[in-house]
Amino acid sequence: MTRFIQVFCILFILLLTQVVLARKTSMKPSKPCKRIVLYLHDTMFNGTNGFNATSATVANGTKLGNFKFGLLAVFDDPMTIDNHLLSPPVARAQGFYFYDMKTTYNAWFGYSLIFNSTKYKGTINIMGADMMDETTRDLSVVGGTGDFFMTRGIATFRTDIFQGFAYFRVQMDIKLFECY
Amino acid sequence: MTRFIQVFCILFILLLTQVVLARKTSMKPSKPCKRIVLYLHDTMFNGTNGFNATSATVANGTKLGNFKFGLLAVFDDPMTIDNHLLSPPVARAQGFYFYDMKTTYNAWFGYSLIFNSTKYKGTINIMGADMMDETTRDLSVVGGTGDFFMTRGIATFRTDIFQGFAYFRVQMDIKLFECY
Amino acid sequence: MTRFIQVFCILFILLLTQVVLARKTSMKPSKPCKRIVLYLHDTMFNGTNGFNATSATVANGTKLGNFKFGLLAVFDDPMTIDNHLLSPPVARAQGFYFYDMKTTYNAWFGYSLIFNSTKYKGTINIMGADMMDETTRDLSVVGGTGDFFMTRGIATFRTDIFQGFAYFRVQMDIKLFECY
Repeated sequence: MTRFIQVFCILFILLLTQVVLARKTSMKPSKPCKRIVLYLHDTMFNGTNGFNATSATVANGTKLGNFKFGLLAVFDDPMTIDNHLLSPPVARAQGFYFYDMKTTYNAWFGYSLIFNSTKYKGTINIMGADMMDETTRDLSVVGGTGDFFMTRGIATFRTDIFQGFAYFRVQMDIKLFECY
Repeated sequence: MTRFIQVFCILFILLLTQVVLARKTSMKPSKPCKRIVLYLHDTMFNGTNGFNATSATVANGTKLGNFKFGLLAVFDDPMTIDNHLLSPPVARAQGFYFYDMKTTYNAWFGYSLIFNSTKYKGTINIMGADMMDETTRDLSVVGGTGDFFMTRGIATFRTDIFQGFAYFRVQMDIKLFECY
Repeated sequence: MTRFIQVFCILFILLLTQVVLARKTSMKPSKPCKRIVLYLHDTMFNGTNGFNATSATVANGTKLGNFKFGLLAVFDDPMTIDNHLLSPPVARAQGFYFYDMKTTYNAWFGYSLIFNSTKYKGTINIMGADMMDETTRDLSVVGGTGDFFMTRGIATFRTDIFQGFAYFRVQMDIKLFECY
């Protein structure tokens, strides 16, 4: 009987070791270790609204299609916990986006969420496709620093309002599945 | 004898726990948990080929060197399973690249592979250096969504054809080493 | 007694399996598995210094604020082990940065460190916010290839010198917490 236990234990441990070390092929996590829902407010610079603007066009769209293909914008946008532009920002989103489809508005984002409050200090780095025609779309949280050291996860975008190119607001549902 | 087993098991488990929790310093995975080989077709917009073009220059190259240093392109390119431009696309690659060397053609990519078929739904996010003088070069798969939730891995580029700046085709060998 | 061992072992292993497979919520690693400290030298192209320049402005800053908001630069900078510009480079940094604040100089970086020496061969991919007003700031190491296969970690920036826009030097303290 003790012989059986011994063999059983060793086999089980070896199996486990292989699962962990060889390929990190694990089950999809059922719920995030941290979740933060925030609203991004992007107010485009039009040449005269320098006081309010938080975003500016760095390269104009090309003549490929009619949906500003290639327009590149850099932004430093406030993030709030509700969808009011004038609510106190709890973080800033700094980065860039560009439009990249001929047949519809569609964008690609690379940016950092920067937290500097009593609740959180640190950054969350995000990149991915913003397929604006979808109700929700997922981007990748690829890293973090400070309170978000080495984090990974998913940022789900949901357009809250899109007022031409003057102002848009996106709900970002940040789900972190790796926390340290 | 049972005493020996007890001590042995506990020590082994403690050792294993440390390996897993402390530092994720594990052996190099021997093979991917998923592998997808696709061809990217990039047809540059020249002002008149709007119907076929899938890529456009957003900022022209600078006068630093003779290899279009700084030229920035945004693309929405079809991905096919073989190297025929007119094969049905199984995914799209949306993102940007720019040239970044004075002495040769060399690029840097940030983009998403977007799958929306019966086989796969989701995105794979990739960034890294495309050292075009090398036969093959590796970029990083830094995240994914949908069927590629939280994935990581390597994207190996191999130039299939480079017809000046009108058209190029790159084989992308996507090896995923973290799957959920 | 053997019954107790059997039950104990199985319970312990099940517990461990859950920790590993369910959510990778582990303790913050106490020290990196690899650490590399290098200096980046960025010499901006001014139209006449093509021989020395390693960086060029691709899109000029906008009129939003007085801190070159939106200025986009592409670079191929040498990395040295000490802060002398003329020391032999041990790696190159290829990528882009742009300024993104109205009220101060603040940047965002996406780039690859490229090693091709007897010591290291491979790349490290980095992105994140460079809040230049902070003494040190952390960016994310989001992936790697070759000797840095699948690595992750933190790149800590410390400005060593900032001579207007002609030349700047940044110490980059690369701490890798996932090594294979």
